[in-house]
Amino acid sequence: MDLTKISSPSFLKDLNKKQLEALAGEIRAFLIEKCSITGGHIGPNLGVVELTIALHKAFNSPKDKFLWDVGHQAYVHKILTGRASQFDTLRQFKGLCGFPKLVESEHDMWETGHSSTSLSAAMGMAAARDIKGDKNFVVPIIGDGALTGGMALEALNHIGHEKTNMIVILNDNEMSIAPNVGALHDVLGRLRTAKEYSRAKEDLESLIHKIPMVGDKLAATAERVKDSLKYLVVSGVFFEELGFKYLGPIDGHDFEALEKTLEYAKKVQGPVLVHVLTKKGKGYKPAEDDTIGTWHGTGPYKMETGAFVKSSTKGPAWSSLVAESVRKCMKEDNRIVTITPAMPVGSKLEGIQKDFPNRFFDVGIAEQHATTMAAGLATQHMKPFLSIYSTFLQRAYDQVLHDIARPNLNVFIGIDRAGLVGADGETHQGVFDISFLRHIPNIVLMMPKDENEGQHMVKTAIDYNDGPIALRYPRGNGLGVEMDAEMKALPIGSWEVLREGSDAVILTFGTTIPMALKAAEQLAYQGIDVRVVNARFIKPMDEVMLHEIMQENLPILTIEESLLQGGFGSAVLEFAFDKKYRNVQIERIGIPDEFIEHGEVDLLLEEINVTAEEAVKRITQLVPNKQSDRVN
Amino acid sequence: MDLTKISSPSFLKDLNKKQLEALAGEIRAFLIEKCSITGGHIGPNLGVVELTIALHKAFNSPKDKFLWDVGHQAYVHKILTGRASQFDTLRQFKGLCGFPKLVESEHDMWETGHSSTSLSAAMGMAAARDIKGDKNFVVPIIGDGALTGGMALEALNHIGHEKTNMIVILNDNEMSIAPNVGALHDVLGRLRTAKEYSRAKEDLESLIHKIPMVGDKLAATAERVKDSLKYLVVSGVFFEELGFKYLGPIDGHDFEALEKTLEYAKKVQGPVLVHVLTKKGKGYKPAEDDTIGTWHGTGPYKMETGAFVKSSTKGPAWSSLVAESVRKCMKEDNRIVTITPAMPVGSKLEGIQKDFPNRFFDVGIAEQHATTMAAGLATQHMKPFLSIYSTFLQRAYDQVLHDIARPNLNVFIGIDRAGLVGADGETHQGVFDISFLRHIPNIVLMMPKDENEGQHMVKTAIDYNDGPIALRYPRGNGLGVEMDAEMKALPIGSWEVLREGSDAVILTFGTTIPMALKAAEQLAYQGIDVRVVNARFIKPMDEVMLHEIMQENLPILTIEESLLQGGFGSAVLEFAFDKKYRNVQIERIGIPDEFIEHGEVDLLLEEINVTAEEAVKRITQLVPNKQSDRVN
Repeated sequence: MDLTKISSPSFLKDLNKKQLEALAGEIRAFLIEKCSITGGHIGPNLGVVELTIALHKAFNSPKDKFLWDVGHQAYVHKILTGRASQFDTLRQFKGLCGFPKLVESEHDMWETGHSSTSLSAAMGMAAARDIKGDKNFVVPIIGDGALTGGMALEALNHIGHEKTNMIVILNDNEMSIAPNVGALHDVLGRLRTAKEYSRAKEDLESLIHKIPMVGDKLAATAERVKDSLKYLVVSGVFFEELGFKYLGPIDGHDFEALEKTLEYAKKVQGPVLVHVLTKKGKGYKPAEDDTIGTWHGTGPYKMETGAFVKSSTKGPAWSSLVAESVRKCMKEDNRIVTITPAMPVGSKLEGIQKDFPNRFFDVGIAEQHATTMAAGLATQHMKPFLSIYSTFLQRAYDQVLHDIARPNLNVFIGIDRAGLVGADGETHQGVFDISFLRHIPNIVLMMPKDENEGQHMVKTAIDYNDGPIALRYPRGNGLGVEMDAEMKALPIGSWEVLREGSDAVILTFGTTIPMALKAAEQLAYQGIDVRVVNARFIKPMDEVMLHEIMQENLPILTIEESLLQGGFGSAVLEFAFDKKYRNVQIERIGIPDEFIEHGEVDLLLEEINVTAEEAVKRITQLVPNKQSDRVN
Repeated sequence: MDLTKISSPSFLKDLNKKQLEALAGEIRAFLIEKCSITGGHIGPNLGVVELTIALHKAFNSPKDKFLWDVGHQAYVHKILTGRASQFDTLRQFKGLCGFPKLVESEHDMWETGHSSTSLSAAMGMAAARDIKGDKNFVVPIIGDGALTGGMALEALNHIGHEKTNMIVILNDNEMSIAPNVGALHDVLGRLRTAKEYSRAKEDLESLIHKIPMVGDKLAATAERVKDSLKYLVVSGVFFEELGFKYLGPIDGHDFEALEKTLEYAKKVQGPVLVHVLTKKGKGYKPAEDDTIGTWHGTGPYKMETGAFVKSSTKGPAWSSLVAESVRKCMKEDNRIVTITPAMPVGSKLEGIQKDFPNRFFDVGIAEQHATTMAAGLATQHMKPFLSIYSTFLQRAYDQVLHDIARPNLNVFIGIDRAGLVGADGETHQGVFDISFLRHIPNIVLMMPKDENEGQHMVKTAIDYNDGPIALRYPRGNGLGVEMDAEMKALPIGSWEVLREGSDAVILTFGTTIPMALKAAEQLAYQGIDVRVVNARFIKPMDEVMLHEIMQENLPILTIEESLLQGGFGSAVLEFAFDKKYRNVQIERIGIPDEFIEHGEVDLLLEEINVTAEEAVKRITQLVPNKQSDRVN
């Protein structure tokens, strides 16, 4: 069938098994083709083709509420709810979002991006339903990886206690993004092989019935045994202890099993957990064969071979650069311990994992635990390197503040994907970290201008022993600069003049430095001579240099690929006023007070006026005399 | 014995049961007396007297590491490690901290205040030990309430998987701060009554042995049954599923049981959980009889009767004022649902809980879940009121950002204990919320000048349907002002001139308004005529009024009982520059870039120069001409 003709999932009700299977095949082919061009979360979506079809057949969306945890596995849901025709624009500027999005469809109930939120939101939706006296199903779909996130566990604890009606679909593919870790994962592993336990339980029941019940003692025993039998089988006992009815495990690619189990689940009173086994990448061999998570989310690839289309890049990937620099330091410094919350692949930590298995911890999707575990290590004079995406560090704000910065512990935080991330969009932009870290006492925060400075900043962080220090680095690749053979620590709080100039100063750091240099060059043609400073330490700032600049009374422009509210530019304003530079002129360029959607980073920056052109305009306004000189 | 003579816990090794019991009695008497004067967390500490003694007898601190989760139950530990003589200064300025504190003692390994951090930190300490090849015990002591915090569950999941050697003491008093909720609490309840299950298991085992094993089928069955037997008994299966050896439950006031179990635990390989039953308030009748949490933490009380010493207050407690205002609104507005993470007593929500049991949720210590559950409710057009302490909202930063503000949902956040909280100190000061909320798009943030404006702000929040809105209010009591009969909504973003003046302007809000008025009065004597503005909306600010002030070119002083970095004053600076008021003079008073210790709020404010005197000084500097006029 023509998938782009689907306007609503209601047509599924009339399809038989054969037709459903045919549809699944068509959707797979469609996804493999479309994602080969746009890139996207192909692996997770291929895994949930049958499951998503079965859910839309069994329930009535939007009356019944689907909540896709994390949300990158909602492509099939998007196809079945009338959005197939938009897949050519997937994850592109003004195009189809890679995650559920309220404005896209009434079938998208819950916006996600970050993991482990679905159960809490589902509890809210179920509570609202019960208060209003409505009748509908609330169906969160959560992966085994997301289930170990702290807030999902908090929610399980609450839902099981309240006995709220809810059908939780546990989509167990044995991976989060990388292969899963954690005791709960081990629980699920046992459940997968629980068949023999089930047989043992059945055998025992028949056995007990055969025993002649003579005398009070044996009768009383039988009663107690009956009561205990529910605990005899490992299957589900963990979830049943938490108050959930457990159903499964079932084959998530078998329409009959799915239909039968979902229909049963609809009749259960109280919360029920349906344990569905799926295979990531199902139906596309390169993705099926992936064991480490390479096919979780990809760029474009050659459909026939699964070979990734290489983008032209100059320098090394930032994640690799930082990880490899840390690995080098680990060879010489036994104190260093690397921790990642489920991102060994994304943050390129495989080399560390291989070389130092005893000093490497992938704790699963558990940002809070990862952060405070780092604090615990630091109390014992180790030097933890916490590798974490900027957007996920949001989850550990209190742990950074309360557990690391307050007791001033020596933790090195590597903030990966800082700044705009592009295709993942709103939920993943790493634009908040400066605003939420800068105000925390004791913290050092820095960002390098290129990969060579990046390696020196790793060394800086390793050598620093006066408290927490964070190194933010962007998504994507370095500039391709020459690398020094030796890593060397930089003086804390030191800035660097990249270009001299005496009419105005641009203070900037990281990815916006090339933009500043370009603006300075253009301004030179107008006779305006702009100094460009690599403000590589965001906290503490280079106060000596700031005093000099302000004493010169030069107009200042700050540029940052980060929030304006409470950001770096704001810190410069605070400095100017606190030090009583009464007449200093400061302009700020950065991200305005709004959430930034998905799309190529360059397009996004243009949209919000974080550009060289804007810098030229602002400086021209700040140095009006020069400009008018030039005009004449 | 004279408790103040204790310098180290080593003396415990030689004490017999009788001597230990005598010591426990003396410590109880000491605590009851000392806390009757200073106030403090008397209930939790009376509950762990025997447990703490037993732990210090069984282990060797500081070689072995105790981590007190939350930490307010460490008074006995402080006594046994040489700090009894400091108890007269408990929780007072420059006095003994109410929580473990690294600088106080080598026996304090882990600083706490916020709940649920101990297991993650213990994992870090244990990992450090194993990497270094050291031999010592790591012993986190965590309450049943703290165990349901997401990060504690994340840690359980990781520790159980890694099979790290660790002895977790689960101090189960069936309460967190209020009575506990959650499925895990139900699990513990079943464990407490697990004896009959144990008997059933024993019976069954003997039963099976008696069955004549005839033929292959029965033999095979017996094998499988044997394998399954470990699951037959409810006792511990939840924790054993997570990879922990479970010991207990044992009586936490029985020295023999404690000693026997702890010695056994020391021999276990891998993680072990010792389930200890204690009674909060043990040995002091008023505290023992408490069922709702009144005796969790108290002010001074009359030792003989347990009657609380009433402090002289003018207005109603802020928590009551807000809770009761919400309760009034709930009568008329069925959309309102109140959610608290374990603070029904602290935030005075008992009236709501009683009147609207179906629209009230105490989710336990689970700030992340509470916040995203509120978001889920809002998607269904309910109006959730999330009542949460400022310091604990730090735990839900990402949930506010990602789940509430990003999709712009109508959640009303009541930020209790905003500003300095006093005796609880560093870990509990509510001074970060403006800096971590102000930069989040879509949010409205306000603080009232008095309780009458407070009730109107509740109405404002309830009536507001354009996204998230947060009302911050301080610890302590209102001013005793007259209350309007009707609650009425304020225009969003509107400020109020409290005092006219044409020489300078003070912009401030909430608790620092009296300070500003006092300064204005003093300045009037110097001939400086200061306008005082109630900047009750921190975001959005009153831009009309700001434009007026800046067009008048009046010097501005901002005062806030909140961080200077990224705070309200910083927002005023940003406004001035973004709107190109090039010559405006602005000074800021607020909390400097450091953590603020415990002590009376007035003393703390004086220490950091947030005072009327400082305001006078700053304004005098800003308006120098007037001053020199006056000098003549």
